Amino acid sequence: MSDIDIRRAQEADVPAIVTMLADDPLGRGREDTSEPLAKAYRDAFAAVDADPNQFLAVMTDGGQVIGTLQITFLAGLSLQGAWRGQIEAVRVAAGRRGERLGQRLLEWAIEKCRERGCRIVQLTTNKSRQDAHRFYDRLGFKASHIGCKLDLKA
Amino acid sequence: MSDIDIRRAQEADVPAIVTMLADDPLGRGREDTSEPLAKAYRDAFAAVDADPNQFLAVMTDGGQVIGTLQITFLAGLSLQGAWRGQIEAVRVAAGRRGERLGQRLLEWAIEKCRERGCRIVQLTTNKSRQDAHRFYDRLGFKASHIGCKLDLKA
Repeated sequence: MSDIDIRRAQEADVPAIVTMLADDPLGRGREDTSEPLAKAYRDAFAAVDADPNQFLAVMTDGGQVIGTLQITFLAGLSLQGAWRGQIEAVRVAAGRRGERLGQRLLEWAIEKCRERGCRIVQLTTNKSRQDAHRFYDRLGFKASHIGCKLDLKA
Repeated sequence: MSDIDIRRAQEADVPAIVTMLADDPLGRGREDTSEPLAKAYRDAFAAVDADPNQFLAVMTDGGQVIGTLQITFLAGLSLQGAWRGQIEAVRVAAGRRGERLGQRLLEWAIEKCRERGCRIVQLTTNKSRQDAHRFYDRLGFKASHIGCKLDLKA
């Protein structure tokens, strides 16, 4: 475990991130891992990378990407002008699950939100991800909300 | 209803927005409406206003603020690099509820997300807000997720 690092993603990490997004019961049907990687992923990476309120992170082991998540820092008037850190697209590579790497990644992200002065860390998780619910509960998250999505392409 | 407009919030609207945020069963205990308005609200407004991916909106009637919501446009790799529009802090002024103004405000926001090329519109709503669940369901949202919050000041 000694070579594990968590850092800001670079463009060269995008294929490995997309592979992890796709390697998932819900992600499988919605990502496109064909090569060369679709331009939409490169464009999305450029938009995230250019935004000072976005932090796309990768966890690496000996240089190999083994995990990812995205943090968005959100300003708002609610809660007396509190900043929120929102976590999305959390994945650990298939071959590296069960090593508590997800916990390490989340604890790192929570600390990042604290450093940025966030009052709240928030995320949503699909109702079908039972293991994820227990995982976030152990990290101290309260499942206080319902997350609603409207698909504009449906 | 003919004088109703929806536009980007200006600094002068902040006190009216905070009043609406506070006038709510959940907001009551967490906002500070004392005058002069706490600097944290002004700072939060400045951060939102400076961010091209944020749109804090007010609905007005004859110039008076009667509703608000905040949209954040989120880039990300998931869903083939889809943009998402996230809606938060939705409120209609106490004296103007029951006129379907919330629906009008949400439909406007969904259209705004469509114009920006978003694939998904997402929001979370507290489990205690039963009326809100029916409201979002009628607008076509699917309650597919659990929304988890971690309070870093708790």
